[in-house]
Parts: sequence; C-alpha cells; structure tokens
Amino acid sequence: MIKKFNHISIAVSSLEKSKKVFEEIFNKKCDMEVDVPDQKVKVAMFDIGGVLFEIIQPTDMESSIAQFVDNRGNALHHIAFSVDDIQKTIEDFIAKGYRMIDQKPRMGAEGHPIAFMHPKSSDGILIEFVEEKEEKKNE
Amino acid sequence: MIKKFNHISIAVSSLEKSKKVFEEIFNKKCDMEVDVPDQKVKVAMFDIGGVLFEIIQPTDMESSIAQFVDNRGNALHHIAFSVDDIQKTIEDFIAKGYRMIDQKPRMGAEGHPIAFMHPKSSDGILIEFVEEKEEKKNE
Repeated sequence: MIKKFNHISIAVSSLEKSKKVFEEIFNKKCDMEVDVPDQKVKVAMFDIGGVLFEIIQPTDMESSIAQFVDNRGNALHHIAFSVDDIQKTIEDFIAKGYRMIDQKPRMGAEGHPIAFMHPKSSDGILIEFVEEKEEKKNE
Repeated sequence: MIKKFNHISIAVSSLEKSKKVFEEIFNKKCDMEVDVPDQKVKVAMFDIGGVLFEIIQPTDMESSIAQFVDNRGNALHHIAFSVDDIQKTIEDFIAKGYRMIDQKPRMGAEGHPIAFMHPKSSDGILIEFVEEKEEKKNE
C-alpha cells in the first residue's frame, strides 16, 4: 500500500553546481551526500518536511541516466513512494500484470530496499517504491 | 520559508486515461478534479499522505504545457513547495536576484495563491510556491 511520497529526484550534469543552487533556494545545507557506485550515480539529499528532494548526477557516461541528462538537460527524473513491504508490493503489481524493472528488491541510495516500476506500466512516468517500515512508537 | 512539498505534477496528453492508470496504482479514486481555464489546463489530484500528486492535461494546443507534452510525451512537469507567505517569498527571491515568472501571486488550481520561479533561476527545474497558512490548532 502506498503511504506517502518518499522522494522526488532530479537528474543533473553537475551535482556540485546543483547542490549549491538548491542550498540557496531551500536556505539549508544538504542533509546527506552518497555515492552509489552500483547504480553509477552520486546523490545529494535534502529533507523537505519529511520527503526527500534528491539531486542525482550520473557517474558513468554510458548509463541510461546520463543519456537522460544528455537529451533533456537537468530535469525531473523520477518519484518514489513509501510502502510497508517491498516484496509484497512487487508481487502484487506483477500479479496484476504490471511490468517491474526490479522483480526483486535491491538496496536504494537511502539505505532501504527499493524497486522501480517500468514506465510502460505507469503512464510514461518513472516510479520507485521504497520500503519504509512504520516506526514503532513507545507511548 | 519552504516548509514542505505541496504537490508534484505530471503533464499528460489524456487526463481520463492517466487518471485511470494512477487510480489503479494508488488503489484509490482521485480526490479532486478541476478545470482551470485561465491556465488552459484541467487537473486531477490525488492526496498521497498530505502531498498532492497532480495530473495536468493542457486544454489549449498552443500553450507551453501542450508543447511540453508534444516534445516529451507524458512526463514529470513541476514540483511545488508550501510557504507561509507567498508575497514575501516572491519579494525575498527577487531581492536576492532570482527570476520569478509570477512577480505577483495568482490563484492556483488548488485554491491558494501561487507563484512560479523561472527555471533559469532553479537549475532548469520548474518550481512553484503555494501559500499554505499554518492551521491554528485549538489545544
């Protein structure tokens, strides 16, 4: 079940330059920077009221995200929603006939298991699901 | 001051078709549909954990948003952040040298005053600000 937005990602040619632009617009330092070699990207994240704004720079010029930036320039790239159980989310969508890029969960830049849906199944929009378990609150 | 994401918008060629796709993915009916003749769009909105997912279809084939859809197909179009005071937000950004598409607030599809920043000032990304006053809570 989709609970909330997890993050919104833009793809850019220069992480350093874009990070400075958004640090000024948001009037805060970026909250986290991370290299994700197996996804061939580096990422800067801003927490904006509980939803992450992510800036992604491709680190391999042959990757699909590098081609995206070549074609469009800096642009909105994908959106991600939080779900309780990523394995069940994948299975449920496949059972309903959706095409998933990830048929098994893999580790995302945020440190949680993730899966992408194929844009052919989501109206041309690239959508990611992120497992984000409810925090148990001691009350 | 930017408080939270207000909405994420995708631009599409057919609101009816896209609305059905996302009603199935989100497993809920869209929360609101609205025609905005002066912006030459019609919009369907889903509330996803307090942030709106908006689907926008241009209603004038000469508009810039129609050209966007012609060039890219269905795609992520813009993101919007909530601010306390839209007039002050515009003035503060202009004072710092930012270029604003809207130098005065206008009414947005969500029924609140809004203003767009020019993508030249926001790294190629189209950003909107929406005035969303804090609800006073009686405690």
